[in-house]
Amino acid sequence: MPGTDPERPPASEARPDPQGRVSRRALFGTAAGGLAALAGGVAAATTLGDGDESPSGAIPFHGPHQAGILTPRQRHVRMAAFDLRTHTDRGRASALLLRWTAAAERLTRGEVPDPRREPPGSRAAETGVLTGTAPARLTLTFGLGPGFFDRPGLTEARPDALAPLPAFPDDRLNPAHCDGHLLVQIGSDDAFVTTHVLRTLQRLAHGEARLRWTMTGFTAADGRRNLMGQIDGTNNPDPRRALLAGPDVPPWLRGGSYVVIRRIRMLLDHWDTLPPAHREQALGRRAVDGAPLTGGTERTPVDLAAVRPDGVPVIAANAHVRLAAPADDRAAVMFRRSWSYHDGLRPDGTPDAGLLFTAWQQDPRTAFVPVQRRLARGDALSRYLVHEASAVFAVPGGVRPGGYPAQELLEG
Amino acid sequence: MPGTDPERPPASEARPDPQGRVSRRALFGTAAGGLAALAGGVAAATTLGDGDESPSGAIPFHGPHQAGILTPRQRHVRMAAFDLRTHTDRGRASALLLRWTAAAERLTRGEVPDPRREPPGSRAAETGVLTGTAPARLTLTFGLGPGFFDRPGLTEARPDALAPLPAFPDDRLNPAHCDGHLLVQIGSDDAFVTTHVLRTLQRLAHGEARLRWTMTGFTAADGRRNLMGQIDGTNNPDPRRALLAGPDVPPWLRGGSYVVIRRIRMLLDHWDTLPPAHREQALGRRAVDGAPLTGGTERTPVDLAAVRPDGVPVIAANAHVRLAAPADDRAAVMFRRSWSYHDGLRPDGTPDAGLLFTAWQQDPRTAFVPVQRRLARGDALSRYLVHEASAVFAVPGGVRPGGYPAQELLEG
Repeated sequence: MPGTDPERPPASEARPDPQGRVSRRALFGTAAGGLAALAGGVAAATTLGDGDESPSGAIPFHGPHQAGILTPRQRHVRMAAFDLRTHTDRGRASALLLRWTAAAERLTRGEVPDPRREPPGSRAAETGVLTGTAPARLTLTFGLGPGFFDRPGLTEARPDALAPLPAFPDDRLNPAHCDGHLLVQIGSDDAFVTTHVLRTLQRLAHGEARLRWTMTGFTAADGRRNLMGQIDGTNNPDPRRALLAGPDVPPWLRGGSYVVIRRIRMLLDHWDTLPPAHREQALGRRAVDGAPLTGGTERTPVDLAAVRPDGVPVIAANAHVRLAAPADDRAAVMFRRSWSYHDGLRPDGTPDAGLLFTAWQQDPRTAFVPVQRRLARGDALSRYLVHEASAVFAVPGGVRPGGYPAQELLEG
Repeated sequence: MPGTDPERPPASEARPDPQGRVSRRALFGTAAGGLAALAGGVAAATTLGDGDESPSGAIPFHGPHQAGILTPRQRHVRMAAFDLRTHTDRGRASALLLRWTAAAERLTRGEVPDPRREPPGSRAAETGVLTGTAPARLTLTFGLGPGFFDRPGLTEARPDALAPLPAFPDDRLNPAHCDGHLLVQIGSDDAFVTTHVLRTLQRLAHGEARLRWTMTGFTAADGRRNLMGQIDGTNNPDPRRALLAGPDVPPWLRGGSYVVIRRIRMLLDHWDTLPPAHREQALGRRAVDGAPLTGGTERTPVDLAAVRPDGVPVIAANAHVRLAAPADDRAAVMFRRSWSYHDGLRPDGTPDAGLLFTAWQQDPRTAFVPVQRRLARGDALSRYLVHEASAVFAVPGGVRPGGYPAQELLEG
């Protein structure tokens, strides 16, 4: 859980409600100026802000950013990575993304995909699984992995920031659950919806891309604790600080972001045997309310310099909150959007459970990578965590009606 | 999906609302007499009916039946089977069930388990994961498998109806996901709750029982379709018809039931390529509304004798609705309570998805077993289904305050 604690109040406060959800009004009502500025090259922003929600729980697919970044975290997520087929060139990738977009527009409205837009040569069809089921704040967020660019006409277009992540000490990655050419993050308050939406995308990828991996996560309806019992997401920055803007950003990425995904297994059987004080010291916060061990409430900044009467630092040298605090404020900003998972038992009988962690940022090289380097070296929490899956994607900016993600890249 | 269609209106109608939930008032307001009769040997029925729900979403653990049978199906379930240790005799099993009960009473009220009731010798403790999280209609339902009775003082007490299930044609069971000495069905509208409740039970089983398998399922918030797109649970009988009563039933089982659990994988990649008419004929119902192919609405009885002008039966000889229809009405009554699952990809890239099916009945030998024998032989749906896990449990009657499930058995 790198960056659980950047220890910096967001520039523009978007307070969570008692359910831990950020009010859409707080985020968008008062921040129209900032949003418009961030929208950058996206000319035709819709009148609906990202995250505005219809009474049926439909979140618009179109907007200045892809939904699923600023959108308050849904209760369920299904992450999936696809690999393009060898024959899938720039033009065919473009057709695939357009097909997925057409389906996403309908699915997010609670409609069945258009049967006339099945891929050529596919015998499979929609079976109406979601008929009568509300989208429940469904969002689909598409991303491009480093490998996406390994084809003619795209090799030069890979942004420098989209480098494969370096190896970190103690990573125990399963390559089959890492990387991928295309990311789809499917979020909804209904696990049945995320499940069938993934099936739909898989069907529509026929002949062009193959599902490489899929992972699920969930959150409590009204809590912010993870499976270790810690309050998660304290002092998350304003998510807009993870969005890309400015003349140096290629048009297809303006209003977009970079996302790092890590599947972090928790060694819960061990964790649950630790004395409570030991658990609190590993994090640097109190279990009961998330306040720093140096006092105050959850939102009080941690006093990293505080020492006990005997001269020992209150926040240990290897406490998570100390090591996760970024050295360089501006470049290291990460917005975290994570879910718990529990996929049953390992062959050794221990739980296959933990955190499906996502970090959104303007440049992983200055944000996730240095923070995770510090954590992997000495974080007291890390001995109870195993990083088993890892991926990084560039997340294109928002989509205009008729367009699709990364259109400027693939048609440029 | 044996018994998707017993084709018989329930004796006492408990109509589902548009969300497919049975009204608690319909079930309990008008049926107090029936309930009292069924309560049988349970002397101190609480004033709250099973399924009465507090405003915070707390369903009482105590009552004439265990919660989780008559309770309207929750959105999430985690099924788990435990095996007793060799040294765990009748007395130690009794202590384990009492410890689990004490935790269940608190967890279903939204409280953390009593820290003074950790098992002897265990170093693990509660880490407060559910602090601040509502139980969201949490129920815990305990059952005893055939193997539970393989210990001194219990061998003679195993009911004849609790026989291991026979092998069925085309079963492809993974023994590691079958059977078990103890069942816990953990249902809640919150997946985070079911997850940590299982962790808690596992911790409290320290030294006495080991988690053998666990499986999860989910339902749509507002739909009754399964992942094949079929409307599920049509003509489910009144669940009270699955409850045990009468002088021949041992006291610990009065008000209880027998549950068969089957994890039925769906070969969705194949299913999705079938022509819509072929899919409807395999089931015998229309996809759009669940009405029989012989006409009417979802609740219209199927006319198994109807023939087309050319003399061919409208409902094919191998249609699921025909084969699932019980030969003997009374003895074959099964109440189904099922969830979908999708656990990612198989090594061959196909989805590991399907139905976590449960059937509740008075005797599996006259209900589930003959129905499944017919289905396994010729059901047109069965070529798209693979039964991969199977278990049967006796589910004791309801628990009085201070008691625990199967108390009369273990202290008798």
